[in-house]
Amino acid sequence: MSKLTHFQDGKPRMVDVSEKAATLRTATAEATVALQPEAVEALRAGGVGKGDPLSVAQLAGILAAKKTGELIPLCHPLPITSADVELRFLPEEARVHITATVKTKAETGVEMEALTACAIAALTVYDMLKAASKGLEITNLRLLHKAGGKSGEWKRGQ
Amino acid sequence: MSKLTHFQDGKPRMVDVSEKAATLRTATAEATVALQPEAVEALRAGGVGKGDPLSVAQLAGILAAKKTGELIPLCHPLPITSADVELRFLPEEARVHITATVKTKAETGVEMEALTACAIAALTVYDMLKAASKGLEITNLRLLHKAGGKSGEWKRGQ
Amino acid sequence: MSKLTHFQDGKPRMVDVSEKAATLRTATAEATVALQPEAVEALRAGGVGKGDPLSVAQLAGILAAKKTGELIPLCHPLPITSADVELRFLPEEARVHITATVKTKAETGVEMEALTACAIAALTVYDMLKAASKGLEITNLRLLHKAGGKSGEWKRGQ
Amino acid sequence: MSKLTHFQDGKPRMVDVSEKAATLRTATAEATVALQPEAVEALRAGGVGKGDPLSVAQLAGILAAKKTGELIPLCHPLPITSADVELRFLPEEARVHITATVKTKAETGVEMEALTACAIAALTVYDMLKAASKGLEITNLRLLHKAGGKSGEWKRGQ
Amino acid sequence: MSKLTHFQDGKPRMVDVSEKAATLRTATAEATVALQPEAVEALRAGGVGKGDPLSVAQLAGILAAKKTGELIPLCHPLPITSADVELRFLPEEARVHITATVKTKAETGVEMEALTACAIAALTVYDMLKAASKGLEITNLRLLHKAGGKSGEWKRGQ
Amino acid sequence: MSKLTHFQDGKPRMVDVSEKAATLRTATAEATVALQPEAVEALRAGGVGKGDPLSVAQLAGILAAKKTGELIPLCHPLPITSADVELRFLPEEARVHITATVKTKAETGVEMEALTACAIAALTVYDMLKAASKGLEITNLRLLHKAGGKSGEWKRGQ
Repeated sequence: MSKLTHFQDGKPRMVDVSEKAATLRTATAEATVALQPEAVEALRAGGVGKGDPLSVAQLAGILAAKKTGELIPLCHPLPITSADVELRFLPEEARVHITATVKTKAETGVEMEALTACAIAALTVYDMLKAASKGLEITNLRLLHKAGGKSGEWKRGQ
Repeated sequence: MSKLTHFQDGKPRMVDVSEKAATLRTATAEATVALQPEAVEALRAGGVGKGDPLSVAQLAGILAAKKTGELIPLCHPLPITSADVELRFLPEEARVHITATVKTKAETGVEMEALTACAIAALTVYDMLKAASKGLEITNLRLLHKAGGKSGEWKRGQ
Repeated sequence: MSKLTHFQDGKPRMVDVSEKAATLRTATAEATVALQPEAVEALRAGGVGKGDPLSVAQLAGILAAKKTGELIPLCHPLPITSADVELRFLPEEARVHITATVKTKAETGVEMEALTACAIAALTVYDMLKAASKGLEITNLRLLHKAGGKSGEWKRGQ
Repeated sequence: MSKLTHFQDGKPRMVDVSEKAATLRTATAEATVALQPEAVEALRAGGVGKGDPLSVAQLAGILAAKKTGELIPLCHPLPITSADVELRFLPEEARVHITATVKTKAETGVEMEALTACAIAALTVYDMLKAASKGLEITNLRLLHKAGGKSGEWKRGQ
Repeated sequence: MSKLTHFQDGKPRMVDVSEKAATLRTATAEATVALQPEAVEALRAGGVGKGDPLSVAQLAGILAAKKTGELIPLCHPLPITSADVELRFLPEEARVHITATVKTKAETGVEMEALTACAIAALTVYDMLKAASKGLEITNLRLLHKAGGKSGEWKRGQ
Repeated sequence: MSKLTHFQDGKPRMVDVSEKAATLRTATAEATVALQPEAVEALRAGGVGKGDPLSVAQLAGILAAKKTGELIPLCHPLPITSADVELRFLPEEARVHITATVKTKAETGVEMEALTACAIAALTVYDMLKAASKGLEITNLRLLHKAGGKSGEWKRGQ
């Protein structure tokens, strides 16, 4: 039996959630932007004062969470009630670490919203550093935790 | 001296490319969706026939390339002239490999368009497989090649 | 007395549905793309394998359902809970037949969402066939059925 | 040989127009909204004064022309330089007739922009009349004329 | 203690309203477009008949109310249930006066939706008059009234 | 003779600029957010460190410049080549002053882009301060300067 719930008779569809209850849902995702030395340097030099690159990327992530239903074809449009995106520059590990937590009261979950926020925040970091270093790489874009709904809680194992 | 060209006096801006010539630019990026066994299984079972998951993701990637200027705050809106997104399911490596090539005739390059296409295609794969397996991970989202413009050609080293 | 509920004192407005209850609503619409012989031929030749034209159009229809509130000025933005778009190529009748069913739990119905999904799916079929045949025509874009809300069920007569 | 230029090896792509010249392109399309008697009546009664239904639909059509690249997956985003949408209420023929002419200076044509403008204008007429009459039907959505580009002029035959 | 609820530890976020009740919210805002004599003249001459400039601006305001969550980074996306925009040309006062009232049933208010509707309606008036007179000015863009939610009613003082 | 170039025979249209040359255009606009004492206080307290309210508003302004063609119905979509938005908090004058300069190489000017950037930046300031003070007011939203195109340079008089 197929586990691809977005497909019926081999054709994609938006899964019908009309009969499900609207309950509180949360999801947290993460991503890493791996930096080369010149990118670490550029971020160290430029990342002081107002409006630093990480703030731009944080805002881009929040805005992207609201656009998820437009970007992922079979996602339901959800009225998100909270979006929290955090970026930490870890120079000694040569990376920027991103986490995003999104909430809604809806019939389906916000995993894709949290992941999309991380992805666009990471791409925005890339955009601002690409003049200094084109070799950046985005890795570990993945779900950390979700709660709410019939399938209940899920946590990434260690 | 700061190498963060998107910042002037510590504040973000869209870089002024008014004086640059509009020339042909191309960029290719890639991403990997690392699959767990149940995701490999689901994709193998469901991925036959019309409208399979990879086709949905491919289209999502093409559409996303056109939305890059809306998603990445300091990107210029570019009239892209070509967008080619390819997804290959590599069951024996337990992953889906994605590449995107974007072209334009413009004052600035399309690296972000190629990367955004890969990211949204990868997230769409995730969306369709998440009922089978939440532990998927997107990695190696990075630029492979760019050409055109004053900075010329760039290729990821081996 | 005017029956144009979108107008008050001769001026357009978004009808106030604040006092209505959010209940389950469904709507089904259809459209036909009438094909010329060369389009029938092109579709027959190209419509095998993954990612055929009808899959692209189907996805375009689902995405369009989510954009209805942006496209139709006086429509309410609705959190749709299901969108199902189906395209059937009927070569012997020289046409593609499209149906779309949309659902929501909201204060107002989803007729426009179902119609918009059909229209954009039909236009996408046109786009992919226009190199082969410019004379295509979209006809019979119309509502087939709606249910839910105070005005209750409606079915197109025979 | 396949005539489906949007497909390569069975997979959809945005056709590469990078090597084509940007020249003046124009396209004109039309659509008809067939009205039932109660819709003719409602439009006759309500269609006087400022802000009548046809003006709302006309504006919706102009705005939709600008959104074509977002709606039709494999369309190129085009910087349109003119959009002219006209709606005429023909009560004695029980229909609204819509035409749209769009222009651009680009590497590819604006047929889809003209068709999309007509479709969304027609759907907007439907939206405003649906409280009076759900049986409306949109027909004859089709290209009338195009000019510019390598494939040259095309006119719908009589 | 900071009163900037959109900031936590100095970083912007979308305020978490998950625990709040969805209740009826309304907000009314206003704006003024101050006209120079040639703009008064142009509007007087052109503002007769169907589709006059104020109707275009009114519709732009309604559409903008629906886009507020996309435009204002930390705003929640809200399913608005009513949007009413009114423009009055006051030639003797050399201005266009705009008011917008928006309603929703949600966890947070619609002040920004009403203000955004007024702002975009005012800018649209500007756009249509700028060929006649570039010196136009938009002033008094402000909230007049809000009701609903825990903070209750608020009215601009005299 | 009507000076409303957006209207022909009393109906709105997007002005045809197909025959005009694409040349460099620039426009600068400004706006003021008038603050009440509690808003001055909140901004003074919260506006230190990364991610302060003015940075959020600045970014919102840049993003809005790119959305102008979607928001203002009869505006042409323009490929902007530069967008620079600046916000200055002037506590002793109890206001935030905003300026935006936008450039393009196109057939028509970017006045609306500069004005829209200022308007959305100002509304974003309002959004972040509204919990502290609802009485804020946006004033003096107006064009300061434009250059390029057949109509040439224009400067606001003193």
